[in-house]
Amino acid sequence: VASPVETIMRKRSGGQHPREELRDFVNGFLGGQVETSQMAAWLMAIFFQGMTDEEIQALTEVYIESGTSIRFPSDMRTVDKHSTGGVGDKVSLPLAAIAVACGARIPMISGRGLGHTGGTLDKLEAIPGFRTGFNEDEFVRMVNEHRLAIISQSEKLVPADKRIYALRDITATVESLPLITASIMSKKIVEGAQNLVIDLKTGSGAFMKTLPQAEELARLLTNVGRRLGQRVSVVFTDMEAPLGKYAGNALEVRESIEYLRGESIPDLDEVTRALVVEMLILIGKARTSEEADDLITEAINSGRALAAFRHFIEVQGGDPQVCDDFSLLPTAPASALITASADGWVESVDSQGIGYALVNIGAGRRKEGDALDYSAGALLPVKIGDRVNCGQSIGEVYAATIELALDAAQRIASSYHIAPKQVRMRNRVLQVWRESTE
Amino acid sequence: VASPVETIMRKRSGGQHPREELRDFVNGFLGGQVETSQMAAWLMAIFFQGMTDEEIQALTEVYIESGTSIRFPSDMRTVDKHSTGGVGDKVSLPLAAIAVACGARIPMISGRGLGHTGGTLDKLEAIPGFRTGFNEDEFVRMVNEHRLAIISQSEKLVPADKRIYALRDITATVESLPLITASIMSKKIVEGAQNLVIDLKTGSGAFMKTLPQAEELARLLTNVGRRLGQRVSVVFTDMEAPLGKYAGNALEVRESIEYLRGESIPDLDEVTRALVVEMLILIGKARTSEEADDLITEAINSGRALAAFRHFIEVQGGDPQVCDDFSLLPTAPASALITASADGWVESVDSQGIGYALVNIGAGRRKEGDALDYSAGALLPVKIGDRVNCGQSIGEVYAATIELALDAAQRIASSYHIAPKQVRMRNRVLQVWRESTE
Repeated sequence: VASPVETIMRKRSGGQHPREELRDFVNGFLGGQVETSQMAAWLMAIFFQGMTDEEIQALTEVYIESGTSIRFPSDMRTVDKHSTGGVGDKVSLPLAAIAVACGARIPMISGRGLGHTGGTLDKLEAIPGFRTGFNEDEFVRMVNEHRLAIISQSEKLVPADKRIYALRDITATVESLPLITASIMSKKIVEGAQNLVIDLKTGSGAFMKTLPQAEELARLLTNVGRRLGQRVSVVFTDMEAPLGKYAGNALEVRESIEYLRGESIPDLDEVTRALVVEMLILIGKARTSEEADDLITEAINSGRALAAFRHFIEVQGGDPQVCDDFSLLPTAPASALITASADGWVESVDSQGIGYALVNIGAGRRKEGDALDYSAGALLPVKIGDRVNCGQSIGEVYAATIELALDAAQRIASSYHIAPKQVRMRNRVLQVWRESTE
Repeated sequence: VASPVETIMRKRSGGQHPREELRDFVNGFLGGQVETSQMAAWLMAIFFQGMTDEEIQALTEVYIESGTSIRFPSDMRTVDKHSTGGVGDKVSLPLAAIAVACGARIPMISGRGLGHTGGTLDKLEAIPGFRTGFNEDEFVRMVNEHRLAIISQSEKLVPADKRIYALRDITATVESLPLITASIMSKKIVEGAQNLVIDLKTGSGAFMKTLPQAEELARLLTNVGRRLGQRVSVVFTDMEAPLGKYAGNALEVRESIEYLRGESIPDLDEVTRALVVEMLILIGKARTSEEADDLITEAINSGRALAAFRHFIEVQGGDPQVCDDFSLLPTAPASALITASADGWVESVDSQGIGYALVNIGAGRRKEGDALDYSAGALLPVKIGDRVNCGQSIGEVYAATIELALDAAQRIASSYHIAPKQVRMRNRVLQVWRESTE
């Protein structure tokens, strides 16, 4: 049996860990025989030396084995969506409602927001009464009876990832594709999702800054899925600018409902549709993109998608009347206009800058456990390629005090880069890697 | 001020730390604001990304500032020797005695052995009554009055290196030239040595396996010395085989005395002379190697070197009569012969293998704090290039029990690689980098 130092040394020297060694090292860390400092040094060695596909698979399995796993009958064809995170990314909300309305069954275990990106649970918890803290039995029952549940990660699921992720966060070892892969895939496998669509965001506002980087992550994710029996499709989307018109927890719930009511929100629609299309194809509800697209249009236009969202809110203890009356959602007392700093066309948007401005008014968290102001956020209707005039209002910030709102409005205004000549609007969906259907 | 994560991230990305950032990070670790896991991740990042000369200097200074420093008047021209460690390396003992007899003044703070290499303190403590635990005031007084003191590192000197070294040991980050440099140089500067000769060992039995590696370390050591006002010469020696005829604590004291009495021990003499020559030139006692060499020969032949050793033992509480009567040194009750496994010429010796065989009989430590058997060791008179016959005795092991002795004898026998054709004897001193004298 290799000692912890020998294990670290092997990776440091560019070697490959036998499966048993990986298991011993991770379990030793959980059991206290491997020091936290040894795990930290190993994580940094992984950052530099990487991992083979076999190692990533083994690490994902060790993560999975560290806790309990949920399983659904294979003919149930469960499907989930995972997003690598972005500013104003409320896609999970309308996506879940539309997909369920089209016959999908979605077991979704989600996370909270940290840093400049928001979390699905935080958005949902902006709905009065909405709960996300269910146990595994309740989760399984909800998925069986209501086709959809979105809950928070319990201590029992993938404790190894939970502890190692917390350590990566403080040791600058988050940005490692093999570690990201094992973390995402272990969580998405133990929740019982047999099929998975990944919204892989690229661009300045996202984790993966370039398409080649995103493609390498996609390769690792689909590869581990294939090895562990989960079918994975990947939709590459552009995160150069916030998605939709609102950012902020209650405001994104509101926007999701507006979209499900049939309002036209082009970029949100483009991304949501592309992801639901892949979900429906993976589970056999549609054979082609066109077929899936028709199903989606019908689900929205008929009101079935909104009804599904209403039902989902009710099942998880929330007040479904928010779908009819937005005044039931938390509302901020103060606001400030965001104004354009120049004449011209919006050339680029610093989403990360906007994300941190939103963290400042309580729409996001600086660190785990920080309290949120659900009502805080911003209206950001201006998109890349739009014509603006200096001094023109290009959005609005909502916050607890006028000081907070004014400060955030100024920061956000400076996140819009305005060019003197015309800029073309861009597509949000860049490409799709569709897993072959049997 | 950079956060710990930002500091780690900067090194991870190949950046350079401003001096203040290095100080904040190391002091934060000592003060508990930087987690041990963060220091571990940073150390591994250093392993991969290295450090600039400016960073190494700054780290050495931060190490020095973490504790107290000893200073001698500059006209005192103190000098010390540091060895990067090897099997059977008793050089410090005769070297100190000869150099003092030639007029040197040596403040030496030394370490204990760990793993396959022995420590000077352990060898000296094999002498009945010998003490190494003196405080800084006693150390300064001994150097002033008796020109020589060899003591153990106190908690007050370089506490940063002490804590970080312990962490490097368990995180596989020992083998980093910048970290090795800061560790060696900080310790050798705070002890008050104004001049330093480094015995840089290369070869399979040493830390630096190749000459280019050793040269890079020498470059870093001399460079930091130059920046911090310590004059450093480097003697590159071959550690392909144990040095001298004995390995083991009491046995190496005995061998040192035999050598100071005038006995011919060619390889020990070659290395000791080369190092003392550089010491004498650094402190201006000789201008050329030939001059220094004559002084050394005279110090040994006249008996003044042995007298200096005798006086040194007495000053540090040991029984100087060991110089006349070896039966006063600890003696092992059991022994076993080491026999050649083939006919031919000794082509190479696995010193590390021999070192670990000696650890097994208590001549060295597996881990810090392990008790030693001072009497345990081996006679290893056969050298590379020597002709041996299968079954011929090529040495002897001394241990607490016959079982231990037999087992070690077998392991050591298999560490001698015997070739069927003649092998040339090799020089132990490979090259010298002499610091220019003013």
